Amino acid sequence: MHNSQIRPVLDALNDCILACEHCASSCLHEEHLHMMVPCIEADRDCADVCRLTHTLLARGSKHGKHLLRECIEVCEACAAECSKHDHDHCQECAATCRRCAEACRSLAA
Amino acid sequence: MHNSQIRPVLDALNDCILACEHCASSCLHEEHLHMMVPCIEADRDCADVCRLTHTLLARGSKHGKHLLRECIEVCEACAAECSKHDHDHCQECAATCRRCAEACRSLAA
Amino acid sequence: MHNSQIRPVLDALNDCILACEHCASSCLHEEHLHMMVPCIEADRDCADVCRLTHTLLARGSKHGKHLLRECIEVCEACAAECSKHDHDHCQECAATCRRCAEACRSLAA
Amino acid sequence: MHNSQIRPVLDALNDCILACEHCASSCLHEEHLHMMVPCIEADRDCADVCRLTHTLLARGSKHGKHLLRECIEVCEACAAECSKHDHDHCQECAATCRRCAEACRSLAA
Repeated sequence: MHNSQIRPVLDALNDCILACEHCASSCLHEEHLHMMVPCIEADRDCADVCRLTHTLLARGSKHGKHLLRECIEVCEACAAECSKHDHDHCQECAATCRRCAEACRSLAA
Repeated sequence: MHNSQIRPVLDALNDCILACEHCASSCLHEEHLHMMVPCIEADRDCADVCRLTHTLLARGSKHGKHLLRECIEVCEACAAECSKHDHDHCQECAATCRRCAEACRSLAA
Repeated sequence: MHNSQIRPVLDALNDCILACEHCASSCLHEEHLHMMVPCIEADRDCADVCRLTHTLLARGSKHGKHLLRECIEVCEACAAECSKHDHDHCQECAATCRRCAEACRSLAA
Repeated sequence: MHNSQIRPVLDALNDCILACEHCASSCLHEEHLHMMVPCIEADRDCADVCRLTHTLLARGSKHGKHLLRECIEVCEACAAECSKHDHDHCQECAATCRRCAEACRSLAA
């Protein structure tokens, strides 16, 4: 259905959406909540930007490629924030965001 | 991250979003376009309802389960419409929508 | 463009999306943050459910009406939670969610 | 709630989402359907990009401003396409997209 160039990016975006939604929800129930606020904010934005990029690429829109630039930036900002925290969901989200940025970068090239 | 009960539903929803976006875009470039209109409309709605269900389940929201009912209905309506058309993207979309409805039904049970 | 029955509901949904996004962001910067968690969670879900309802009604989808039921429930849950907190953004969000539930209920009738 | 600089942009984005969803749905029921395909595709993308920009600005995200660039481009592309067609919904959509691009441009400045 989607070709071999686009499919891994769609998968990476889906993984990133799942990791960000899960991380935001989990952060809200951590003990040191004030410290987690920038992480929650980054997760929320990253999930939404990845969701639109996923949508546009899935439908073969020419605007999909234009979103990649912004998507890479948001994923990297989220990875940088999440990587500061030791919680499993944060570390996992940071790694997933980095992989997503990498996948988007390959496609943008 | 997401447990073994929820993960297959998230995967089925993602597959369904991809199939519906692709089918809608492909239908718009078929020769007998007037015949494809109900299929395009069903795809558009199904992709959006699956996207919200995916979002709510991914974040562990209690409203995720409430959406399943509507998601099953929209997936079945889309499968019924797509299955009328012989194009590969329609047949593939019909099968994917049916699998998604099935996955949602298991989780709702 | 949209008729006089649907337009006030679209406006109420838009107001509700704006109030919920603003309330969630503001709650994250309140002092007694742990108390605000259920409010943030309700806001997040309410914004997303209203967004899909707005989308489906705007496009004239038959599934728009089906979403109203769930939208009313999510708006009322969000109003109930927000109304427990004295912050302006919470009180404003509670009132906006109640108006949105009311508008959806009129259309569903 | 939202300040006097951001509120008119949120309103313009909401109007644009409504016009694009309505135009896409209406185009699908026009007689010369093949001619309307680029318009339907532009509407679909424009509605989705405006929806994310609306979301990010409503929550006060720093990424909201980054999306403006892309949003302006998508609105202008949609206006250019819609303005080629005489249907009321196309002409109305073209004008609304142009106003939205203008509002986004003021905020980006």
